[in-house]
Amino acid sequence: MLFSKFFAPTSRDTPADAKIASHILMLRSGMISQAASGIYYWLPLAVRVLDKISGIIHEEQERINSQKMYFTTIQPADLWQESGRYEAYGKEMLRLKDRKGGDFLYSPTNEEQATDVFRKYVKSYRGLPLCLYQIHWKFRDEIRPRFGVMRGREFLMKDAYSFDINFEGAKAAYMNMFRAYIKTFRRMGLTPIPVQADSGAIGGNMSHEFQILADTGESTLYYDKKLSTASDEELMIIFAVADEKYDPNTCPIPENELMVSKGIEVGHIFYFGTKYSKAMNVFVLDENGNKIYPEMGSYGIGVSRLIAAIIESSHDEKGIVWPEAVAPFDLTILNLHHKNEKCREVSQKIYDAINCNCCCSNASTKKEVLYDDREISVGEKLADADLIGIPWQILVGEKKIKNDIVELKNRKTGEVIEMSPEKIIGRFR
Amino acid sequence: MLFSKFFAPTSRDTPADAKIASHILMLRSGMISQAASGIYYWLPLAVRVLDKISGIIHEEQERINSQKMYFTTIQPADLWQESGRYEAYGKEMLRLKDRKGGDFLYSPTNEEQATDVFRKYVKSYRGLPLCLYQIHWKFRDEIRPRFGVMRGREFLMKDAYSFDINFEGAKAAYMNMFRAYIKTFRRMGLTPIPVQADSGAIGGNMSHEFQILADTGESTLYYDKKLSTASDEELMIIFAVADEKYDPNTCPIPENELMVSKGIEVGHIFYFGTKYSKAMNVFVLDENGNKIYPEMGSYGIGVSRLIAAIIESSHDEKGIVWPEAVAPFDLTILNLHHKNEKCREVSQKIYDAINCNCCCSNASTKKEVLYDDREISVGEKLADADLIGIPWQILVGEKKIKNDIVELKNRKTGEVIEMSPEKIIGRFR
Repeated sequence: MLFSKFFAPTSRDTPADAKIASHILMLRSGMISQAASGIYYWLPLAVRVLDKISGIIHEEQERINSQKMYFTTIQPADLWQESGRYEAYGKEMLRLKDRKGGDFLYSPTNEEQATDVFRKYVKSYRGLPLCLYQIHWKFRDEIRPRFGVMRGREFLMKDAYSFDINFEGAKAAYMNMFRAYIKTFRRMGLTPIPVQADSGAIGGNMSHEFQILADTGESTLYYDKKLSTASDEELMIIFAVADEKYDPNTCPIPENELMVSKGIEVGHIFYFGTKYSKAMNVFVLDENGNKIYPEMGSYGIGVSRLIAAIIESSHDEKGIVWPEAVAPFDLTILNLHHKNEKCREVSQKIYDAINCNCCCSNASTKKEVLYDDREISVGEKLADADLIGIPWQILVGEKKIKNDIVELKNRKTGEVIEMSPEKIIGRFR
Repeated sequence: MLFSKFFAPTSRDTPADAKIASHILMLRSGMISQAASGIYYWLPLAVRVLDKISGIIHEEQERINSQKMYFTTIQPADLWQESGRYEAYGKEMLRLKDRKGGDFLYSPTNEEQATDVFRKYVKSYRGLPLCLYQIHWKFRDEIRPRFGVMRGREFLMKDAYSFDINFEGAKAAYMNMFRAYIKTFRRMGLTPIPVQADSGAIGGNMSHEFQILADTGESTLYYDKKLSTASDEELMIIFAVADEKYDPNTCPIPENELMVSKGIEVGHIFYFGTKYSKAMNVFVLDENGNKIYPEMGSYGIGVSRLIAAIIESSHDEKGIVWPEAVAPFDLTILNLHHKNEKCREVSQKIYDAINCNCCCSNASTKKEVLYDDREISVGEKLADADLIGIPWQILVGEKKIKNDIVELKNRKTGEVIEMSPEKIIGRFR
């Protein structure tokens, strides 16, 4: 992608109403733009990251046979009257009427619809276990939307719903999802901390929040220091709680083994048993013809919030530092002196070689490149590259290129290595 | 994917309220399920097709530098008051109020938001041309939703918006999109007919509808028979109109060169000049500091409708016949006698070999396989395979397998070829 043709409207100015790093940096790098309070346009740079995140989530969901579908954004109120949550949900639910006066709402979550799909098709124990997920837009009418997409009103969420024949099955589904979440967040370069949680409005009696470590997080986490080296299995039983659940008097971990860090919630999983299946009278028949109410769980990841959380956990004073797995591009080529013929020639050559679509390149390892060919100053290019935070920068400048040298800069460490254009092509191709 | 674990609830019964082939077949094959009038759940089989279609659209948009972003589903009413369309749009627009009493609506289309994004960032002629697109959910409150997802209320749409400095630029953008659409539909195995159109509520003065040929289509198309062999360039100038625009007295094509066919509208492109940029007072400065109102166009493809349209254009009395490029799976293996050990062994072997994730397989050519391992009758398996319409069926039956023979059936032609399991693995790997 040529930067001169890419719509990433970067800015030097710190937006007046943005208070936290992710909000400031997402606005300044041209990732998002406010459409209304708590409602954001997602510009091309952000969509590339959303797609990367969604792709990783999809792979890990597929691995545990959680199947991708779409519930709907607009749903009829009657399902929620059936479950008993319609009144209870309060003003965060965006309620509306269609042209015929029917009561509808914009999905804040989809437990009722998942149960509805299940009852339409699954009548026998043989249809279990079943796990369905979607990555879809939701709306929660927050009274005080703030911090950009961290606490927005319209947001992208991954939500999954599991159905099992008994508690053992439901627990296995819960643990599968637990492990899938740990893997999902780790693949994104994050350190997930699963904390024991209350299940709040969703209801239920087994629940974990997934927090990721970030100095600017709004939660304070207290956890056993063994957690950072624990296996997936151990993670579930190691002590970890957030703010309101921490009591120094009852904490089972001695002070010298207790870690205290700031975190941001990016996922939440719930086991709630037969809460919805009973409320909505949904059952299957077992081998002997007996009615069984399926045991359910639901599992969420805030996909759009995750972008902000990743930035909170990975940025510096110059801008974003994307983990490689979710970076909008793998590398960026900076032609530092666009008026210099040699710089243009070498930049273009590197770009063409790495960006090549010829048969020799393997689609799965192909690198995505942003080539900054804009006719602007060296300083602006360097500042934009650090702001946008692509993991690797290839710097092509008029001085070094005389000796057939370009520089490879690691955005995270700042380390710069000199090498020939040929060598750098070999490195990324 | 093992069919025994795949959520595709097929049915023999013809649904009472479904009148057209695509609606019947999408319900019977377990692709969609009604959540409310004109609002559908998209089950896993359908989502696989949606993703294939979206993937092709994305590739062809990227090729013309139409950049992927997301506008929002909920937008503030004031943008539409600015453009003058808020009252005019009528009851098809789903209007709503948030908790603070603000006027909002669920996007039926996004010209206003596209113009809003543009004016926030582009101030100079150097920011042009620009083309932005999204694949996103929309809502139009149809008075009589019908024909399943063909005329639903909540639907998935690709919409693009172009901005150019003058008419020549806008025309070039229009023609680029025209060609991209032809290519997009052809890649999906369809025959697109671009017909001259009125621009309706969007406004403007150059417009084409893209219809695809289907015997069950709701439009009647009249077009020059040269159209079927025309180049992309010729397509734009060859005579083709739908119903209301056809007048035998003024038709320039002699009767023996005129084709008459049924079609379904799946895309629509508009050039509307400065309609929105002037209404919303959006301008850039040219090289001499003069105000220029950008020339705009908008370009839509009904992504969810396209699934129904493809089925209308490609099915038979047994079920769907997917074009290869958009099929939910590339091939399906039917173990016809699940109690026979040899059948199980050979089916599994073929499945493992084709489904293999080892290093030797190239991700871009890897085939997606649905292995029907269910413990049901031969008849049910064959019927489901024809209903679901995966292009290739590998039949593993107890009689033939004694002689080391399996059958490869082409869903479209019905042609069956016998070959060894090894040969079939080589064919698809």
